[in-house]
Amino acid sequence: MIWVVGAGICRGQITERGKELLRKADIVYGSRRAFELIDFELKEKRVLSRFDSSVFEEIAREGKEKEVVVLSTGDPMVAGLGKKFREMGVEVEIEPGISSVQLALAKLKVDLTEVVVVDCHARDFDSSTLDFLKYRHLLILADRRFDLTKLGDRKIILLENLCMEGESIREGFADSVEVKSDYAIIFVES
Amino acid sequence: MIWVVGAGICRGQITERGKELLRKADIVYGSRRAFELIDFELKEKRVLSRFDSSVFEEIAREGKEKEVVVLSTGDPMVAGLGKKFREMGVEVEIEPGISSVQLALAKLKVDLTEVVVVDCHARDFDSSTLDFLKYRHLLILADRRFDLTKLGDRKIILLENLCMEGESIREGFADSVEVKSDYAIIFVES
Repeated sequence: MIWVVGAGICRGQITERGKELLRKADIVYGSRRAFELIDFELKEKRVLSRFDSSVFEEIAREGKEKEVVVLSTGDPMVAGLGKKFREMGVEVEIEPGISSVQLALAKLKVDLTEVVVVDCHARDFDSSTLDFLKYRHLLILADRRFDLTKLGDRKIILLENLCMEGESIREGFADSVEVKSDYAIIFVES
Repeated sequence: MIWVVGAGICRGQITERGKELLRKADIVYGSRRAFELIDFELKEKRVLSRFDSSVFEEIAREGKEKEVVVLSTGDPMVAGLGKKFREMGVEVEIEPGISSVQLALAKLKVDLTEVVVVDCHARDFDSSTLDFLKYRHLLILADRRFDLTKLGDRKIILLENLCMEGESIREGFADSVEVKSDYAIIFVES
């Protein structure tokens, strides 16, 4: 059996259910960053620097015989690993965790039903996304490659490195600030 | 100080950070359902059947002198209490919890960045919301008053009472099923 478990973003954000699944697991896969969020012993830890298709195949194979957990930072269904397993056709169970989106909304005091969440990690921003601003604010998950000029001179709030070293929240106009982190969230008001 | 803490939806979904805030609190407000998710002792529990403006005023007053926690089912920023405190102008800190939206996405294996989340709890469905279907799937938070005929004959997945008695997930056409629960989520594919 394969569980994809959300570790949250900050230390202490793992749920009791997530902890229980980790404790029972024969093998736990995860990134270095995901393991840093966990402060208890695991039977077997496999630290991965990237999740390519050979890793998914290995996990699928091992999941047939053992209790395998894939530890995901944040929530597996927020720009996360859950979708990748779906695309690879690998059957998994998902245990949610606190995502960076939730953390950002908590800081901004904005409700999830007031925004549209857009994933621009390692992908270009499609300008037609700005159409959503007719109805909702935008919450864009971005990295330092994100080209802020695509947002024109709109007022934005840029949240970077939430719960990490160098956490910062800055307000400004999109054409006068710069994304400096690969863990950035851009709030664009509608 | 006032913290609004998400309790999650299922038992064992509270985070370590949430637990810590609850343990330190002088007073904890919450609904009967929110307290049912917590299995440890609290200093002082105040069970509320509704959050009207007099309750918000009382909490604001007490928060000036004591450590007050408002326990919210799910996540305070998902069709939740956080927005209400903002609207009332009461300063609070938010500690996220697992929401029913995350639970639904985990079951559906759909990513948050593939949907638009719509709150139709105790409010009517605005048909212009269907415009979003050009870009995204819809995830509608609904109660039994929700009029499914507004979705036409679209194929839907109806998730009810997640992590509660009578949990059910049904597929069907919007004009041939009925919402039976006040804790319903309707997934409409784009």
